[in-house]
Amino acid sequence: MAQVAIYPGSFDPITSGHLGIIERGLYVFDKLIVAVAINARKGPFFTLEERLGFIERSFEGNDRVVVDSFTGLTVDYVRTKGANVILRGLRAVADFEYELQMANLNRKLAPGIETLLMMTGEEYFFVSSQNVKEIALLGGDIQGLVPPHVVEAFREKLERGEP
Amino acid sequence: MAQVAIYPGSFDPITSGHLGIIERGLYVFDKLIVAVAINARKGPFFTLEERLGFIERSFEGNDRVVVDSFTGLTVDYVRTKGANVILRGLRAVADFEYELQMANLNRKLAPGIETLLMMTGEEYFFVSSQNVKEIALLGGDIQGLVPPHVVEAFREKLERGEP
Amino acid sequence: MAQVAIYPGSFDPITSGHLGIIERGLYVFDKLIVAVAINARKGPFFTLEERLGFIERSFEGNDRVVVDSFTGLTVDYVRTKGANVILRGLRAVADFEYELQMANLNRKLAPGIETLLMMTGEEYFFVSSQNVKEIALLGGDIQGLVPPHVVEAFREKLERGEP
Amino acid sequence: MAQVAIYPGSFDPITSGHLGIIERGLYVFDKLIVAVAINARKGPFFTLEERLGFIERSFEGNDRVVVDSFTGLTVDYVRTKGANVILRGLRAVADFEYELQMANLNRKLAPGIETLLMMTGEEYFFVSSQNVKEIALLGGDIQGLVPPHVVEAFREKLERGEP
Amino acid sequence: MAQVAIYPGSFDPITSGHLGIIERGLYVFDKLIVAVAINARKGPFFTLEERLGFIERSFEGNDRVVVDSFTGLTVDYVRTKGANVILRGLRAVADFEYELQMANLNRKLAPGIETLLMMTGEEYFFVSSQNVKEIALLGGDIQGLVPPHVVEAFREKLERGEP
Amino acid sequence: MAQVAIYPGSFDPITSGHLGIIERGLYVFDKLIVAVAINARKGPFFTLEERLGFIERSFEGNDRVVVDSFTGLTVDYVRTKGANVILRGLRAVADFEYELQMANLNRKLAPGIETLLMMTGEEYFFVSSQNVKEIALLGGDIQGLVPPHVVEAFREKLERGEP
Repeated sequence: MAQVAIYPGSFDPITSGHLGIIERGLYVFDKLIVAVAINARKGPFFTLEERLGFIERSFEGNDRVVVDSFTGLTVDYVRTKGANVILRGLRAVADFEYELQMANLNRKLAPGIETLLMMTGEEYFFVSSQNVKEIALLGGDIQGLVPPHVVEAFREKLERGEP
Repeated sequence: MAQVAIYPGSFDPITSGHLGIIERGLYVFDKLIVAVAINARKGPFFTLEERLGFIERSFEGNDRVVVDSFTGLTVDYVRTKGANVILRGLRAVADFEYELQMANLNRKLAPGIETLLMMTGEEYFFVSSQNVKEIALLGGDIQGLVPPHVVEAFREKLERGEP
Repeated sequence: MAQVAIYPGSFDPITSGHLGIIERGLYVFDKLIVAVAINARKGPFFTLEERLGFIERSFEGNDRVVVDSFTGLTVDYVRTKGANVILRGLRAVADFEYELQMANLNRKLAPGIETLLMMTGEEYFFVSSQNVKEIALLGGDIQGLVPPHVVEAFREKLERGEP
Repeated sequence: MAQVAIYPGSFDPITSGHLGIIERGLYVFDKLIVAVAINARKGPFFTLEERLGFIERSFEGNDRVVVDSFTGLTVDYVRTKGANVILRGLRAVADFEYELQMANLNRKLAPGIETLLMMTGEEYFFVSSQNVKEIALLGGDIQGLVPPHVVEAFREKLERGEP
Repeated sequence: MAQVAIYPGSFDPITSGHLGIIERGLYVFDKLIVAVAINARKGPFFTLEERLGFIERSFEGNDRVVVDSFTGLTVDYVRTKGANVILRGLRAVADFEYELQMANLNRKLAPGIETLLMMTGEEYFFVSSQNVKEIALLGGDIQGLVPPHVVEAFREKLERGEP
Repeated sequence: MAQVAIYPGSFDPITSGHLGIIERGLYVFDKLIVAVAINARKGPFFTLEERLGFIERSFEGNDRVVVDSFTGLTVDYVRTKGANVILRGLRAVADFEYELQMANLNRKLAPGIETLLMMTGEEYFFVSSQNVKEIALLGGDIQGLVPPHVVEAFREKLERGEP
């Protein structure tokens, strides 16, 4: 079977830690759908278009990575794609408990869809979208923590006086 | 690609929690090699033959599950099988930290071999080979915690006055 | 002594996990006062009246369960009821640390009032009021996670276009 | 109902942390049975008689504390006593996970028997039978960590050249 | 070398737990700079001037404790002070993971600046600025949890009908 | 004051993670005494002389690092050296809880002696003496995980058929 996995998240923005999970996920799965969750309640830092663009640019030319967005429950989205695997990265104990609850909840909501977890590489375990944003807003250097085009996007956004 | 995953462990004995991981792993992977680690230092409760037999009996007739044993490093065994995925079950925070260390260590020892983790189903998260043995030795009822033929094997062993 | 325990919480809304703690708490205590905390700062999803009603309906006819609400410190409320036991459910490590701090803080604020913790049953450990609300708002099926009359209340609220 | 709780453990030896749990448990329960588990496999530091004697001496004259010993499964012992509550102290995350597994396992083995957990007081959260023994063997001062008669028992044992 | 350490935080307000870390930090370092982080996004309960004043009053006459404030990245502030040590208190596993990430992130942002952690004394491990504020707002007694002049400041603020 | 810190441990053998803590500790302290604990009960893999030699060789020519050994309580040893700081590395939650207990216990045994913790660098957080030994015994490559002379010592020991 050609195995497809869905890698869902906010990706606000994509970080080097996410890139590592995607690259390593491609050792295991034939195709990865990186799926940006649209959350009407949480105002993101980057727009949906910006977030999708950052991911697309990181994998352009690689037809095993598809970038998409979705609303609603993750498991419903997974089903519409005909997939049965959710891939998630794990960094810390707090992540672990959240993922443990979500994985079991998703199994109840959608038996047959499985969540597989991959440990974030040790070189990125301290990198999250949240702390990248905090560092950038305080004027710190985020090179290496996100792809170069995201470093540039932060620079432009901050120069325009946003947010 | 036909995806093969190695599911290594002591399986002393296999529990309902392990069975759940294997069954769910088959939703994701084409073939699972359940690999019993031979540890010269740790005296097991059941012999290697018994442990292999318990697993074989649980999956007889299912040619997508292969039962094997190995000595040495897990990653070396994975390579000899031409595989690149290690599957592991996660139950608790203590498991998580151990698995986090092992996954990163194994990536250093063998880049390209990835560890994927699956959360143990909530109905089995309190079941381990260790506490099954403790309960059986104290005369408790282990039905449902291990396959019926393992319940029987405990009964026979204890009647013979072992260990 | 006829032992009374106070089971405080936001119950926004009561879940199957809470019901399990209450039912099991009745094996141990003569009477349980389920006490809904009124928090002026946190806008709840369901009104106080709705939250109280959901609990009352779940235990109607059972005079060992009393439903009440309170403002102010939990320990002050416990004292006004002439009780000395707070019952709390524990699901995860994050819960554990919060409860550990609160239990010790409450012992300092009110020596003689004791907090007793009961582990949430494994079948509900992934259920919280928070994730029930998230699933319902995203159109997912919450049957089994909350009592039937709460499923219905969500349906009506969402049909009215709330919140 | 006159509520009886069983407080099981190795108590090798009883510490000030255990004493705190027992004293506070008496605010909640009518009677506490402190039950020393006899574990044929783990050689204790103090004999069963010594361990029982230490607890008895700490509560002599208090007829609400009964000291006893048992072999086999804790839940079987609880049933023979006609009780349905196991009391346990919680100190740390590692404790929490172990107790979470045991509480759920015991509920499966014996539905209707409930485990209630009490947080160890902050003044004793770093005290365990294990580290008391280590400190005593290295010549450190254990006053305050165990009752005075246990301090004395360590002194005598070490003077006799044991263990 | 005369060793200077920076002890950064929100200190909204300073608690007895913070005081304990500072006092014990003075056993180790020649000088401690207690640095209040100015966070434009998070509206504090007490103004910057109040927060600085509380700390100054607690250490007046002690020229080894300097009170200061800063904006921007902590590591940039540390460098402007010619220091290379950040001191932080640790209370719980959740703290631990956050501090682990921040310490490694700061080492990447500023190699040569080291974070040293000190365990909060057990008598204060349940005290945080957050739960002190919650207790005070609910009318509870916070004596012993914060210095006497902070108890007084809460009383005055609440009498004025703030916040 | 010239600040001296004691870095105690089993160091069986010293790893790259330990080396990182020592090197970074020298940014903060004037002198570090690396103190090998002699534990009569735990049979080490390498002899005391080997363990001391490995550390000495790693820091030869550096007079700010002193290598020593001790028996008995760590705090008693710290006092005989006229020091008041214990330095410890932290890798994981399990470490954290152990260190939290030991730090508070040591403060009770010896007020005025403080334990400071440093987070192990992310590149070594998965390296422990224990897993280095396991990998070496299974024939794995431990280069980079320990200093080159320790790699060599393992090779020689295993060639001699030990242990």
